[in-house]
Amino acid sequence: MSDALVVFTPSGKRGRFPLGTPVLTAARQLGVDLDSVCGGRGICSKCQITPGYGNYPKHGLTVAPDALSEWNAVEQRYKDKRGLIDGRRLGCQAQIQGDVLIDVPPESQLHRQVVRKAASARAIAMDPATRLYFVEVAQPDMHEPSGDLERLGNALRHQWNIEGITASPGILRKLQSVLRQGNWSVTVAIFADHRPGPARILEIWPGFHEGPLLGLAIDLGSTTIAAHLTDLSNGAVIASGGVMNPQIRFGEDLMSRVSYAMMNPGGDAEMTAAVRLAVNALAQSVTAEAGADPAAIMEAVLVCNPVMHHLFLGIDPVELGQAPFALATSDSLAMPARELELTALNPEAQLYILPCIAGHVGADAAAVALSEAPEQSDDLVLIVDVGTNAELLLGNRQRVLACSSPTGPAFEGAQISSGQRAAPGAIERIAIDPRTKEPRFKVIGSDLWSDEPGFGEATARTGVTGICGSGIIEAVAEMRLAGIVDTAGLIGSPAQTGTERCIADGRTHAYLIHDATDTGGPRISVTQGDIRAIQLAKAALYAGARLLMDEMGVERVERVVLAGAFGAHISARHAMILGMIPDCPLDKVTSAGNAAGTGARLALCNAGARAAIEAQVKRIHKVETAIEPRFQEHFVNASAIPHAIDRFPELARVVTLPVVSHNTGADGGGRRRGRTRG
Amino acid sequence: MSDALVVFTPSGKRGRFPLGTPVLTAARQLGVDLDSVCGGRGICSKCQITPGYGNYPKHGLTVAPDALSEWNAVEQRYKDKRGLIDGRRLGCQAQIQGDVLIDVPPESQLHRQVVRKAASARAIAMDPATRLYFVEVAQPDMHEPSGDLERLGNALRHQWNIEGITASPGILRKLQSVLRQGNWSVTVAIFADHRPGPARILEIWPGFHEGPLLGLAIDLGSTTIAAHLTDLSNGAVIASGGVMNPQIRFGEDLMSRVSYAMMNPGGDAEMTAAVRLAVNALAQSVTAEAGADPAAIMEAVLVCNPVMHHLFLGIDPVELGQAPFALATSDSLAMPARELELTALNPEAQLYILPCIAGHVGADAAAVALSEAPEQSDDLVLIVDVGTNAELLLGNRQRVLACSSPTGPAFEGAQISSGQRAAPGAIERIAIDPRTKEPRFKVIGSDLWSDEPGFGEATARTGVTGICGSGIIEAVAEMRLAGIVDTAGLIGSPAQTGTERCIADGRTHAYLIHDATDTGGPRISVTQGDIRAIQLAKAALYAGARLLMDEMGVERVERVVLAGAFGAHISARHAMILGMIPDCPLDKVTSAGNAAGTGARLALCNAGARAAIEAQVKRIHKVETAIEPRFQEHFVNASAIPHAIDRFPELARVVTLPVVSHNTGADGGGRRRGRTRG
Repeated sequence: MSDALVVFTPSGKRGRFPLGTPVLTAARQLGVDLDSVCGGRGICSKCQITPGYGNYPKHGLTVAPDALSEWNAVEQRYKDKRGLIDGRRLGCQAQIQGDVLIDVPPESQLHRQVVRKAASARAIAMDPATRLYFVEVAQPDMHEPSGDLERLGNALRHQWNIEGITASPGILRKLQSVLRQGNWSVTVAIFADHRPGPARILEIWPGFHEGPLLGLAIDLGSTTIAAHLTDLSNGAVIASGGVMNPQIRFGEDLMSRVSYAMMNPGGDAEMTAAVRLAVNALAQSVTAEAGADPAAIMEAVLVCNPVMHHLFLGIDPVELGQAPFALATSDSLAMPARELELTALNPEAQLYILPCIAGHVGADAAAVALSEAPEQSDDLVLIVDVGTNAELLLGNRQRVLACSSPTGPAFEGAQISSGQRAAPGAIERIAIDPRTKEPRFKVIGSDLWSDEPGFGEATARTGVTGICGSGIIEAVAEMRLAGIVDTAGLIGSPAQTGTERCIADGRTHAYLIHDATDTGGPRISVTQGDIRAIQLAKAALYAGARLLMDEMGVERVERVVLAGAFGAHISARHAMILGMIPDCPLDKVTSAGNAAGTGARLALCNAGARAAIEAQVKRIHKVETAIEPRFQEHFVNASAIPHAIDRFPELARVVTLPVVSHNTGADGGGRRRGRTRG
Repeated sequence: MSDALVVFTPSGKRGRFPLGTPVLTAARQLGVDLDSVCGGRGICSKCQITPGYGNYPKHGLTVAPDALSEWNAVEQRYKDKRGLIDGRRLGCQAQIQGDVLIDVPPESQLHRQVVRKAASARAIAMDPATRLYFVEVAQPDMHEPSGDLERLGNALRHQWNIEGITASPGILRKLQSVLRQGNWSVTVAIFADHRPGPARILEIWPGFHEGPLLGLAIDLGSTTIAAHLTDLSNGAVIASGGVMNPQIRFGEDLMSRVSYAMMNPGGDAEMTAAVRLAVNALAQSVTAEAGADPAAIMEAVLVCNPVMHHLFLGIDPVELGQAPFALATSDSLAMPARELELTALNPEAQLYILPCIAGHVGADAAAVALSEAPEQSDDLVLIVDVGTNAELLLGNRQRVLACSSPTGPAFEGAQISSGQRAAPGAIERIAIDPRTKEPRFKVIGSDLWSDEPGFGEATARTGVTGICGSGIIEAVAEMRLAGIVDTAGLIGSPAQTGTERCIADGRTHAYLIHDATDTGGPRISVTQGDIRAIQLAKAALYAGARLLMDEMGVERVERVVLAGAFGAHISARHAMILGMIPDCPLDKVTSAGNAAGTGARLALCNAGARAAIEAQVKRIHKVETAIEPRFQEHFVNASAIPHAIDRFPELARVVTLPVVSHNTGADGGGRRRGRTRG
């Protein structure tokens, strides 16, 4: 026998190879997904495999104990130094000596699937644009003169099949010393995304360098900026962080920032500088939190709404404030991060900005579309990304529509009298007893309800400071269910409602939730103005969804996904009581968490996902709410609060049920139910 | 007749077209080289053509007076506003009405040949990487939202067949306002060179913009930096200038600069900053001289030796100072000029640096190879680029070899006691009467010889200040011919030479050329040390040439081309008397002028030339002189001065002939000969 059959699992790929062929070589020839950074030199240990011995009738294979070459010194050294699970071999060392079954464990798969933390089954397939390659470079030869870069290029071509490389002056500057320091063996970080053109050297280290290679997924919101520091080899988020968008000082909502740019010459440049500074600071803080080196960040992916998009790029956003809401550029953008002054990363780090869908539907909506993939949904799904501006996607395999809706920042707790952003001390859940009209609530930072023993002690440090976005939605919905607010949104007097918590507030009334004024704390209430702000916001959101449904020619959606950091905390029941979203069976309303951030992470971990969303965005049909008369019509019709209750009888039953926490699941809910009722 | 025959000259292309077809359209369909910036909108007047009427038997054509549509209002407006030569039509306006002969005048040819100023017949074919395009862009549409950039891209695709564009944040920043200012008609400067990838928008103007588009060809020498400001539409040099390389203060020759970098931490960065500053200043001064706008400079092409290459790129040159003389990178480089701090050009200007041939044979030698094209020569040509380092090319259609030779700066007047750079007042020509041993000379800035009437007045302003490179070569050669210097290079005493001009100078003698000490001026002489410096330099140059001839297996070259700004001024006779260059019939020694600069201009005007020289450089065989024992051998053998005279009897006759100025030609020479002999 001069050759042998090799079968790889889980791929099922098989082929015959000459005896003596390393398993890694066989895998490469068959296109089996087996990782390697050192190219088979026994340095990186990425190519671990598990041989199977014995009978495998399913594969028509019997594997003898000597089907692979003997455990060798390189493998032993590795096991001693770094540990190797029993039964594992290094694919570059183990040679084929007979028919054999080779299992590639998930850690050794370059394109392994990384299951997302959230409940959704959607997974991230790793296919990063930046990877590490270990190469041995030919030394210079006076008789065949060529540059160090050109010999490195040859090594990458011969050892890794990478055709054509390019390097910035910054890399050229360090190339000579690193090559000589590494005695002509170096590890290079190579960037090659979905666009044509030569691969780019982002970094070079002497000898073998294990990494990490990091990427930063940035969700640049109007109010907050979030960043996820991600390991580009496995997709793991190693640190996350957020800061307030410093542009808030120029205007709370987007349109006031556009106005600022219009009214103040140089105002847009000022806002650009502020937000870039904040992103740099955030990159530094998440990197510090992870104990990582900022120079390890090789890529950043940014998602944001169109106004932030322009302000981040340094483009005057004024055109976005008026019809026809023309973007300066809508396609994706890819460039060195330093061109946009993102200097906290590796100097060669590459930035990718997802495409915008339209002048009101930004790269953040594209990221949500990438994460939630409505174009792959069998049922008609409405995806709502609630932020300062709500962005909506409606679609299924046939067609996907998009629009945005000017909800304003009320859902984020802004423009609400006791409103605050989601931070410890903020009321995030509220229940009002329909008989006694007494409220009980939970604050961020504590698992206890306000009427549970120990609540005072548990919240002593933070106090109860205000109501955040999800809290105000629950408050208004509960007030409606308890009869404190009528259909039109008017708060009743103590006489009408039968509770002294309805206190006079000018010529209207406010509902008192918590009064800590005797201990120097705040008095937290929901005012008539707060109700109006929420009514306007929810009517806008609902009208946007209805407009898309009109365009699609449907009266019902089959599924609703609430996206956005805020969407993760909204109670679907209360959202539907309020009439924020169209009627839909409650069990078909799910939260996607921060879907825009997930989309950014997807694009960060998978260069193919960038090509996919660029193509998909071109297929999405855009609906402009601002000029659509039916939007106004829907908006006016949607301001009443009982809206959903009338048409959704089962919602009425919610009234008699206590609130179940989304986070603690059925058990926790059951426990609390008992206590509450008791 | 529903169609007609159209014949274009000078191309001879012909075809039948429906009546009513504009001439420009017909030209495009046939691939006739007819320029247009506005795409046939009657704005740019680049598509001027000359119709021929009457009988053209050679073309089998009879053209009726009404073969083209009538002269129209657009053409009349143009003629009134800007003038149009009688008989010319605008190709976009004139429509075919019958068989017609259309001549495309040279100015209307996009790829027209621009004949070089110098005597050589070599021409520059225009094929610039950057061109202007006038486009009409669709206005934004809320119902089909897309970015301004994407609509501009569509317009370029539909109106100009340009697929795929990209733009920097700087262009994105101005895009919106320029599009609206031009009422959705704009002119864009698009850069698309020989490399794959999307075309790049370098500049955008509202409405129709006529140009100019400028390019800067930069010849970055160790001693001087020269720049030619070139019109990218026709290759015309509109201004040239030069400055001293400020790195001279860190070391006169390249190796002393490399030493400076080795001995002084940060020394290379200091030199990099200095030379970039000087290139910026030079760009500003030539632009100012031309009365042009620096922002009109869209491209720069740089040629230089390897050490300057590294110092300009910011790469430590130390590796170039020691075997194996490894370049950090040898391939061509293309990048935005701002990446190398060339900020005096348009902010989007693109820089191209020609490839280096080897660690001692730089991008300047590649430029000479591009300009002189030895690979296209039927006879074996030796091309010598004389500078601080001499670079040599030897080859023909079969094979091209290259090497460099460490001549040192003596040929440039440096390290010579009375040496100076070529500037007004410097002696550039010398003749010594073999009988009287009396010298006469010419200085830069005057056409008169020193023994002609009026010389004193003509040089009163500058005086006679020193000897430049070409002057010192002539001086030494003439001293040898007059018997003042012997074969070994020793200056004789007054007794030996019979002239009191041989004055004592320490333990040796010096030959006095000019003494102005009585009027406070300098005393200009050639010392024994000067002779030694020239002997070393010429021996090095000759040894390099011999080494290439050995490698080629030849004993003779058929043609010698002297390149370099200095080469332009060397008298071929004197160079051969001195033994600088191998034996070759005198009429086969020509000057190519600043061939490196010409190569830079070629690459600037023709993107295809960039691809051509990149391919050619890979084919050139490099010979490293530093490690070649035969180089030392040749060097030692070449230090004697009579060298060429012995083997080249006709050169002896030079002794009895006066010097003929290269610049004034045969007539001038004859006139002077008469005077001299008389």
